[in-house]
Amino acid sequence: MSEIRKHYFLADYCIIAEGRAKRPSDFVFEQPEMGPRASSPGSESKLTSEPVASSPLSLSCVFCAGNEGRTPPASVVYKDGTLFEEGAERVQDWDVRCFPNIYPALSPAPPPTHSPAFPPIPAFSGLQGFRCEAVPGFGFHEVIVESPVHGRNLEVFSDGELRLLMRVYRDRVAHYRQHEKIRYVSLFKNFGKAAGASLEHSHSQLLALPLLPPLFEKELQAIRALDRCPYCAVLETEIRAERLILENRDCIAFAPYCSKVPFEVWILPKKHVCSLETCSEDLLFSLGDMLRAIVSKYREKLMGPAYNCMFHLSESPEYHLSLRLIPRLSLPAGFELNTGIYINTVSPERAASCLREI
Amino acid sequence: MSEIRKHYFLADYCIIAEGRAKRPSDFVFEQPEMGPRASSPGSESKLTSEPVASSPLSLSCVFCAGNEGRTPPASVVYKDGTLFEEGAERVQDWDVRCFPNIYPALSPAPPPTHSPAFPPIPAFSGLQGFRCEAVPGFGFHEVIVESPVHGRNLEVFSDGELRLLMRVYRDRVAHYRQHEKIRYVSLFKNFGKAAGASLEHSHSQLLALPLLPPLFEKELQAIRALDRCPYCAVLETEIRAERLILENRDCIAFAPYCSKVPFEVWILPKKHVCSLETCSEDLLFSLGDMLRAIVSKYREKLMGPAYNCMFHLSESPEYHLSLRLIPRLSLPAGFELNTGIYINTVSPERAASCLREI
Repeated sequence: MSEIRKHYFLADYCIIAEGRAKRPSDFVFEQPEMGPRASSPGSESKLTSEPVASSPLSLSCVFCAGNEGRTPPASVVYKDGTLFEEGAERVQDWDVRCFPNIYPALSPAPPPTHSPAFPPIPAFSGLQGFRCEAVPGFGFHEVIVESPVHGRNLEVFSDGELRLLMRVYRDRVAHYRQHEKIRYVSLFKNFGKAAGASLEHSHSQLLALPLLPPLFEKELQAIRALDRCPYCAVLETEIRAERLILENRDCIAFAPYCSKVPFEVWILPKKHVCSLETCSEDLLFSLGDMLRAIVSKYREKLMGPAYNCMFHLSESPEYHLSLRLIPRLSLPAGFELNTGIYINTVSPERAASCLREI
Repeated sequence: MSEIRKHYFLADYCIIAEGRAKRPSDFVFEQPEMGPRASSPGSESKLTSEPVASSPLSLSCVFCAGNEGRTPPASVVYKDGTLFEEGAERVQDWDVRCFPNIYPALSPAPPPTHSPAFPPIPAFSGLQGFRCEAVPGFGFHEVIVESPVHGRNLEVFSDGELRLLMRVYRDRVAHYRQHEKIRYVSLFKNFGKAAGASLEHSHSQLLALPLLPPLFEKELQAIRALDRCPYCAVLETEIRAERLILENRDCIAFAPYCSKVPFEVWILPKKHVCSLETCSEDLLFSLGDMLRAIVSKYREKLMGPAYNCMFHLSESPEYHLSLRLIPRLSLPAGFELNTGIYINTVSPERAASCLREI
């Protein structure tokens, strides 16, 4: 029999129904989408002290080193451990390059006609009855190209590359959070077409929003109603549970009890930190190391599925930072869209057991 | 510039960013998935007074007439306008057949060992701090095969077939709502593989749940805080707005102001009714007629995409019934999974204009 499970501390449910995994389909069988190919020998980055090989792909890919002119000018680049802001665009041989998304969901300057009327966000929420309400799409939408080398993905990053990437994540979140009109910074990575990526070259994205997403508002309310951090309590349980996948000095990776989809993974720092800015260099590296390990497990055990990776963070000190990984092995359907309750055909206990295997 | 839009009356947002529709992809181009093929001539149903043609597909499809033995015994069948409950399984030449899903997400009887401990649902919600909480997956999961004929889809249904289907929907929701342990009945249709359907033969599904999904709980709370039905107010606005797609005597179809995905459509009865059981026969038919019209528009204008159709209903009289259609033309990605805010690259105004075109 299946089981209806509740989220650790939110009014959020899923149905664990492993029997449904067996159902047949009369649609044409397709291989699960392989994410972008793993690095090939020779496609090493500067940080591993190997020459950057130019491949036919790098000629056409706008994110590749050498094609900087085909994307907007960089906001910042990182090279040899140094951050370049002013004149970033002229820096060659970068290690990580950040620039505004050329197809932005949000953009920095409201057009002049809207500018004076830009309504304050607080008036925009709440239940005031029916009104068609909107504000201009003010915000920032940045692309973070994680490596100059096409096909060089997280799972083959050297420690040096990983350390740099985590620093970039922290810096860019901190940068946008300083803006007086920004209320939330969403940092995420879409890997593979089925995860919504449109380009194969390994990259992350950041959207700085003028409002706190209701999901976080509700979660913070729930946390404030408790007498201790629920994630600290989750950590104490999951570190000993059969859902644990990996542990290192600073964090754990586990399949959450109320997993919405097969092989969902959360990475949780052992120390209570609310965002990347409050992480030490060591903790940042540990988080990245765990992320690389899980992504490698996905490739090894699940044939390299498309996946999304999201940072759940907040500037409110009550919050407890986490990274969440969602491999795209299943599709939400009418039931999920109707009720918000997910049917998951792989229990987190089974998922963890599979990912733990050597 | 894009626009951040708020839901009519909930703390729910989307970003309308049409510029993002232009972004290129370096993944292999694929045709949008065609839903199951439209009826071919000859595949007519009994209700159109044409012979039911047997096709090679109908030999292998478990939902086709003649293959009843390959699914669980029927709970009810409808034939020539008559409902058969007792002995449903022996009725030949049915028009609509309902039976328990052989791969159920929820099942009627908790196994004996769990039965005495089945916890009452009220104790299961609320914010009590961290506990791994679950209840057995009690409930009902029913399949509604809409036609005995393979490939006969909604858009080619005769008025008679449509009238019957809507009656079946109403009857089955009413049936499960009488059960003392059932708190919500989710009725939906997945059409096409990209919408989560595993079989091509046109069918709907019903999940009767022992809990009220939090989404509905929150919506009902919001409605109760207002001094009138917000959907009645939405109707007054949208019936005159550029987002209107179709109107008939009893209902309207429109692209909602805060559309999460391209070509999302809501069908709203003009009369305030909370569920299917309180609809007159005429209203039921009007709803079905509108559903058929929108699905035909999807085929004509969008090359027959996969789609989900969900009934949003409640037994609480404050609620206002709607049908919602989500074509699967885009994928939620990391941003949507992180924030719950959807980026939609086709404004509802443009979507409505496209679907209105003759």
